Amino acid sequence: MPGNKQTPVLIVGGGPAGLAAAHALASIGQKAILVDKEPALGGAPILSGYARLVPSGEWAKDAIGGMVSRVEGNALVACHKGCTVKEFAGSPGAFVAQLSDGTRLEAGAAILCTGFTHFDSVNKPEWGFGTYPDVVTTTQVEQMISSGKGVRCPSDGRKPERVAILLCVGSRDRQIGREWCSKICCTVSCNIAMEIREELPGCHVYIYYMDIRTFGLYETKYYWASQEEYKVKYIKARVAEVTSNGEKLIIKAEDTLVKRPITIPFDLVVHAIGMDPNVDNKLLAATFGIDLEPHGFIGKAAAYGTLGETSRPGVFVAGAATGPETIDDSIAQGKAAAIAAFALATARAQAVAA
Amino acid sequence: MPGNKQTPVLIVGGGPAGLAAAHALASIGQKAILVDKEPALGGAPILSGYARLVPSGEWAKDAIGGMVSRVEGNALVACHKGCTVKEFAGSPGAFVAQLSDGTRLEAGAAILCTGFTHFDSVNKPEWGFGTYPDVVTTTQVEQMISSGKGVRCPSDGRKPERVAILLCVGSRDRQIGREWCSKICCTVSCNIAMEIREELPGCHVYIYYMDIRTFGLYETKYYWASQEEYKVKYIKARVAEVTSNGEKLIIKAEDTLVKRPITIPFDLVVHAIGMDPNVDNKLLAATFGIDLEPHGFIGKAAAYGTLGETSRPGVFVAGAATGPETIDDSIAQGKAAAIAAFALATARAQAVAA
Repeated sequence: MPGNKQTPVLIVGGGPAGLAAAHALASIGQKAILVDKEPALGGAPILSGYARLVPSGEWAKDAIGGMVSRVEGNALVACHKGCTVKEFAGSPGAFVAQLSDGTRLEAGAAILCTGFTHFDSVNKPEWGFGTYPDVVTTTQVEQMISSGKGVRCPSDGRKPERVAILLCVGSRDRQIGREWCSKICCTVSCNIAMEIREELPGCHVYIYYMDIRTFGLYETKYYWASQEEYKVKYIKARVAEVTSNGEKLIIKAEDTLVKRPITIPFDLVVHAIGMDPNVDNKLLAATFGIDLEPHGFIGKAAAYGTLGETSRPGVFVAGAATGPETIDDSIAQGKAAAIAAFALATARAQAVAA
Repeated sequence: MPGNKQTPVLIVGGGPAGLAAAHALASIGQKAILVDKEPALGGAPILSGYARLVPSGEWAKDAIGGMVSRVEGNALVACHKGCTVKEFAGSPGAFVAQLSDGTRLEAGAAILCTGFTHFDSVNKPEWGFGTYPDVVTTTQVEQMISSGKGVRCPSDGRKPERVAILLCVGSRDRQIGREWCSKICCTVSCNIAMEIREELPGCHVYIYYMDIRTFGLYETKYYWASQEEYKVKYIKARVAEVTSNGEKLIIKAEDTLVKRPITIPFDLVVHAIGMDPNVDNKLLAATFGIDLEPHGFIGKAAAYGTLGETSRPGVFVAGAATGPETIDDSIAQGKAAAIAAFALATARAQAVAA
């Protein structure tokens, strides 16, 4: 174990990936500096008020909140909240960072766990968000569930009798410059559909989709369970528009299986919003001297032997900063970057000592 | 850094996850014992002769072969090939393992990276494998490409003019007890389709699918590129059977978009085979005293704070052993398990020393 003079590892972003990295480093005696621009740690699952997470079924406030507590209570992790990195210079093993709170520190390596930005549904106006109060996002439904108040129509607080979840809002959509798939929204939407059916057994829930991407073991746990145990209905369709007849929301679409237009009324329409690159990525790229990939996410090494490396030696990246990612893989990537950062910081410390 | 008396970490399985774990441990000065039942390391990408890998585009023999070389050449990693673990007893920090080659060793922790078994297409007889020599698997096409001989019809060695790739062979198929999705076959099939079009520009390549699951950034790199740059054709269909008219293979299917039967002749039909649980999983479960999940993969902790743990403390799991997985996530999970195993081995060593 390195002694007290060890150089810490700088971690930027305190969501699942950053929390996992910080805890992993502390668990092997390595100091970490965790910087988050928000006033609280936890990333999207905490700050956006997610409910039960995929695939563990844990409540976000327990699962990710627990990861926050064990990091904030760890003497080896110094947390700088409401803080950003202003300057980052030096070389692997011997970086110097200047933080916005005035702190100047040395770091052996850096791990960027800066996550994503939720797609803003106002950029898909023909689907009704911003026009009709009962058109909401998956994030808003998560908040309704996690608040304990249940899923209600924002316009008047009534329990919806018919809910539609529209997949791929801000994903797989070239018209609005989001050609990528956001990876986990299909599975999250299956999960939300089941949550709604559990709270409101009389409510009919429909999912409008292009392809259902409940990959791996999510297939049985979410796709099949939602259909067979929870009677969620799936419609393969291209949605044209969401309007209102004054009483109900009306979804006009083309059913791509029967090649016919379908018009169905709903009480609540949910946009399954995708993951945009973090809005700060250009600034991060400039500060850390790293490359972004063509969509605007943080670029990572393609070679299997060097996964988790950015274009700058000694600066690693993990989680949804590199593209749409699940929470469990973000955690694995955070830990993977941690061991690589530790190796670098330690090798340098040993070289200096020798 | 622990001294020479440190207890090593036992890693079972020398595919991408196991190689990543071993290298990560060695890079921070931790000894590892890597046991593989096969006479050579590398796992499926090497032993099954994969060609260019998703998503790096590296040749398997270079990418995974390079990971093998750096592990085999590392003094901190002891490789036991053609060897299995016969007995495993003890507790976290102080396990004792008996190997089939007679070695008896102490281990601070164990990481199971025992991967998957390819689905055997003879279990889907109506799709022609085993009956017609020109019905092959994705693995066989990978071998044709990686051998440098190119994609040919096995029956007579001719260049195929029309190739069909059938997705979900041994996946999402309850009739044969494989209800899970194998996660990466869609993307691998897009990749293979582009490889075929590149080698044989006159060849028509069709992909028969239920849903296309090129999740995340694979959407643009594989799904769109295969259609737009490589003119691969996609047919959403339920395949009924593959037969022969004596000259061509005949695929009978129902096109689920136009709800009509379609019958198309091909020279070569490729089964995109899925990932079964490793056939040794029951034995591994008994030897290591761990639980399997309902499909027969190795069970892992659902809680985010403890990802990578099995039901037995001190025994971790990474990669496709836990369910269908990509190579890059297998590598991240291998490294993540490595840091957890290192923490455990080190904490115990320190406790004993104190």
